[in-house]
Amino acid sequence: MKIILIGATGTIGKAVHAELGQRHDIIPVGRNSGDQHADIADPDSIRRLYADIGPFDALVSTTGTVHFGPLTEFTAEQFDLGLRDKLMGQVNLVMLGLAHIRDGGSFTLTSGLLNENPIRQGISAALVNGGIEGFVRGAAIELPRGIRINAVSPTVVEEALGRYAPFFRGFKPAPARDVALGYAKSVEGAQTGRIYRIGWSRDN
Amino acid sequence: MKIILIGATGTIGKAVHAELGQRHDIIPVGRNSGDQHADIADPDSIRRLYADIGPFDALVSTTGTVHFGPLTEFTAEQFDLGLRDKLMGQVNLVMLGLAHIRDGGSFTLTSGLLNENPIRQGISAALVNGGIEGFVRGAAIELPRGIRINAVSPTVVEEALGRYAPFFRGFKPAPARDVALGYAKSVEGAQTGRIYRIGWSRDN
Repeated sequence: MKIILIGATGTIGKAVHAELGQRHDIIPVGRNSGDQHADIADPDSIRRLYADIGPFDALVSTTGTVHFGPLTEFTAEQFDLGLRDKLMGQVNLVMLGLAHIRDGGSFTLTSGLLNENPIRQGISAALVNGGIEGFVRGAAIELPRGIRINAVSPTVVEEALGRYAPFFRGFKPAPARDVALGYAKSVEGAQTGRIYRIGWSRDN
Repeated sequence: MKIILIGATGTIGKAVHAELGQRHDIIPVGRNSGDQHADIADPDSIRRLYADIGPFDALVSTTGTVHFGPLTEFTAEQFDLGLRDKLMGQVNLVMLGLAHIRDGGSFTLTSGLLNENPIRQGISAALVNGGIEGFVRGAAIELPRGIRINAVSPTVVEEALGRYAPFFRGFKPAPARDVALGYAKSVEGAQTGRIYRIGWSRDN
């Protein structure tokens, strides 16, 4: 399969590359690095990316920026960053990718546990992750030509814990290679409209 | 309690007014009607509303517009309507209401089942409802002064079924008076960060 990997140089992206790269052709895309560049918050940047790459079999997005900060100090602009980048950026990867993805292809987006398992300062992530998951479930029943869509919702990633540990006390981290399995399950499996929770469940 | 009711002239809003109005002072707010007017998509309109009303004990929002249409034809502008109105409109009711709500007060927002139980043409509602629910869970753990927040997620409402029936075949509708109980549970109960599902569950 020809697989576009958005966020290829991030912690999760590198692990997904290692996992899926064993069996597939990966086109790594970074915001400022990788074979291809794209800023998912800019629809024109996404359009250019797809025009350059041409037909593909799967898109995996492991990227998306949100602001973290205390609820009572959160500004409209800080909410807007998450809406434009992690939420509508990933939605637009799907909407604009529909003209280029092959029959039976798949989209795999990234949410995260904070909409079900919130932390302080995580209000935008909670909102955005919920939106992504709703979009994935809604899109799954309307996508044409056998195209599938899923999301991976990882817990905090072990390799990123140095920076994030103070926000995630008591959360058991998952190694990035375990998180990468969720993306392989989505791309190489046959399910659609699923949220693959890695390292946590709704019940804990 | 002094309760601000946004969407007071809608099907659910009228039922909430009937239920909570038996025991509390309701300030009905409509987009174009009611004692007070507000357009939740316009933050300045929300600011004026709160300045007019002064301190209050609870806000209930039963309003919010999203576009319905086929996924493959959905435009950026159509997604943007749902983001500005039902999603960030309700978020802004909370963010801008924080300066005016009394200690121990509550916010109750409205999502809907489409993020978990999607229908054709409902992609924006799915995204927006997921965002609202993530916001509610995230905000609940950060709100100061004992302020609570919940959402009600009704199934399709019996009284609105005439218009929506073709989109909801097989869905058992709930009468608006049953949906109204979810808002009473949120306002008059003591829980926070909950999504009260009325007439459906995640399991069916």
